[in-house]
Amino acid sequence: MAARPENAHQARLLRLLRDRGPQSRSELGQPMELSRSKLAVELDRLAELGLVEAGGLAASSGGRRSAIATLASGLRFAAIDIGATSIDVAVTDGELRVLGQLSEPCDIRQGPAPVLERAVDLLGKLRTDAHMAGRLHGAGVGVPGPVSFREGMPVAPPIMPGWHRFPVREAIAQELGCPVLVDNDVNILALGEMQAGSAHSVADFLLVKAGTGIGCGIVVDGGIYRGVSGSAGDIGHLRITDDGPVCACGNSGCLEAYAGGAALAREAIARAGRSPFLSERLTAAGTLTATDLADAAAAGDPLAVAMIREAGAHLGTALAGLVSFFNPGLVVIAGGLTGFGHPLLAEIRSVVYRRSSPLATGNLPIVLSELAELGGVIGAARLISDHIFSVA
Amino acid sequence: MAARPENAHQARLLRLLRDRGPQSRSELGQPMELSRSKLAVELDRLAELGLVEAGGLAASSGGRRSAIATLASGLRFAAIDIGATSIDVAVTDGELRVLGQLSEPCDIRQGPAPVLERAVDLLGKLRTDAHMAGRLHGAGVGVPGPVSFREGMPVAPPIMPGWHRFPVREAIAQELGCPVLVDNDVNILALGEMQAGSAHSVADFLLVKAGTGIGCGIVVDGGIYRGVSGSAGDIGHLRITDDGPVCACGNSGCLEAYAGGAALAREAIARAGRSPFLSERLTAAGTLTATDLADAAAAGDPLAVAMIREAGAHLGTALAGLVSFFNPGLVVIAGGLTGFGHPLLAEIRSVVYRRSSPLATGNLPIVLSELAELGGVIGAARLISDHIFSVA
Repeated sequence: MAARPENAHQARLLRLLRDRGPQSRSELGQPMELSRSKLAVELDRLAELGLVEAGGLAASSGGRRSAIATLASGLRFAAIDIGATSIDVAVTDGELRVLGQLSEPCDIRQGPAPVLERAVDLLGKLRTDAHMAGRLHGAGVGVPGPVSFREGMPVAPPIMPGWHRFPVREAIAQELGCPVLVDNDVNILALGEMQAGSAHSVADFLLVKAGTGIGCGIVVDGGIYRGVSGSAGDIGHLRITDDGPVCACGNSGCLEAYAGGAALAREAIARAGRSPFLSERLTAAGTLTATDLADAAAAGDPLAVAMIREAGAHLGTALAGLVSFFNPGLVVIAGGLTGFGHPLLAEIRSVVYRRSSPLATGNLPIVLSELAELGGVIGAARLISDHIFSVA
Repeated sequence: MAARPENAHQARLLRLLRDRGPQSRSELGQPMELSRSKLAVELDRLAELGLVEAGGLAASSGGRRSAIATLASGLRFAAIDIGATSIDVAVTDGELRVLGQLSEPCDIRQGPAPVLERAVDLLGKLRTDAHMAGRLHGAGVGVPGPVSFREGMPVAPPIMPGWHRFPVREAIAQELGCPVLVDNDVNILALGEMQAGSAHSVADFLLVKAGTGIGCGIVVDGGIYRGVSGSAGDIGHLRITDDGPVCACGNSGCLEAYAGGAALAREAIARAGRSPFLSERLTAAGTLTATDLADAAAAGDPLAVAMIREAGAHLGTALAGLVSFFNPGLVVIAGGLTGFGHPLLAEIRSVVYRRSSPLATGNLPIVLSELAELGGVIGAARLISDHIFSVA
């Protein structure tokens, strides 16, 4: 088993080096509030554990030149982001820089055994590169459904037949021989934004993933808020109206039934007759997806633009209430629907800024994620590194 | 200035003694994870500071008899809970037991100077009792509107003309000569439930205050979550419909315009012709309040019962979304509308259990607060004691 820090100071040092890169002992002394000698003791111990390396001397600022500390160059984390229709895997270094990444289409409905085997194979392929071949210090895994975080397994996931209570954490840990944590895809994306995206310095924010389904990652004081049974952020079935379309959940007028990617694709098929662009695609492919809708809007198709605006207005309606309630410092929109781009964002903003409490929107940025598919793997690496860089 | 703990161990000891009452050194040793000798050092130091007293010996459990520690009997906190139409003041001991309490009608619209003077006078009256006359260690204040917690002053409070940026904290601190903290009435009620109510052992919960207006206290991991600009929990203007009654905020179909006490009173006046009970009251008093509606319902008036059920359904609709989003361990309903009792609660529960995510409602109790007007003063005392029992 790979080394872990022995006390809270060491854990804090590792996270500082991860998030701020190599630093001199005098730079580290200030945020750590440790004496020079105490800091040296902890860094020496981390070096003995193989987690930190000395990296030369800092430029002099007048006094004695200070030694640079850096995370051990051999630290490696694996990241597996399993989507409804794809697998993304990556290997990162200790600072969570992606050293290599592979993606492949994959249908989650095949069930856990073949999908996880495929993920491990992909990771193996990546690790034939000498740079990524060494020992793994941990692996983070994201899956597209509710997860019992404590147990590391999906629980009654609606779009993952056969995965209910499958021990994903144990299965991957056995294959890779390292500690593993599993979380849902939305929390993973929120962690990715925190690590490398727009939320880098924001303590309290919301990450809305709008794709086939719709979910929300909630970050409170720099950490994922999961709620008492792990279902916090489950916003796909927020009520938009009492009399809207019937949803898979049995209620009517749910957010997902209005603005989820699956609902939009169905609606695009139903209305395709009114759009030359969409009816041509439908004839050619026999079906339509949210991507076709984005292509149609990009080509100036009025029906597609109108449908994307409607979806944005419904997302905005749901978000307006959450913004008043939670008063976040930032809202990030991620997931497949961000392919709709600024027409979607403009409509979301318009509704939130009109309907939320003015105190809550005074300084509230609402942005599209810029991490694309990297968000998931960086978030998965962040998840496991937070664990490894904490006291056992 | 009164003494404060010098380190995190001492702060933790004071909170344990506050929340669990007098305890032997061996009982304290376990949660504190301190050696017997280290614990003795900290308790001795707290005794020197006048915060803790020795209270005899515990019954023997076989070995050496352990000394009982107790909070200093002279610790006194003041609590001031200012409502729209009333002032409640109290004095508590260190364990936040209410030693005495006074209430008086008072119109907040008189402005800060006369209202705060009245509050300080009431407190003075209470403190003529020798038991409450000693030095105050701190005072907590609740006001019915948005507060900049950091600055201790109301900010643009809609029902408090003249209070915008009035330095409530400084004014009260000068009068009482002790540290003061100010928060909004809803957060204060949430703290009261945490201290002495249904939320005693719940880390993550929601406290909904439904009175003239409607607001929500959000507790995350045992502490108030205030959001980035202090407006978290501002749920009065959540959208219920697009085409409902116009609200004071300028939008239509807000929760408060459907289910706030003020809206219900207006609606009762408008519909009184259909209820003998209400029209009699209206004729007698020239107006109707939410209390009249509660009385009518208690007397079996069908219109009043129907109106209360409608209000419950609208509250439930708003809460259903918040429960899915936040996945709390408990929802407590407080405020004037709890006078409507179980017909209101039954309707709220029915909608939340039907519309929220099943994972979030699996083990979710939804209860009425049982603290009545004590909730506010106990919460205000808890607010300031959390501050005094922390490292300066």
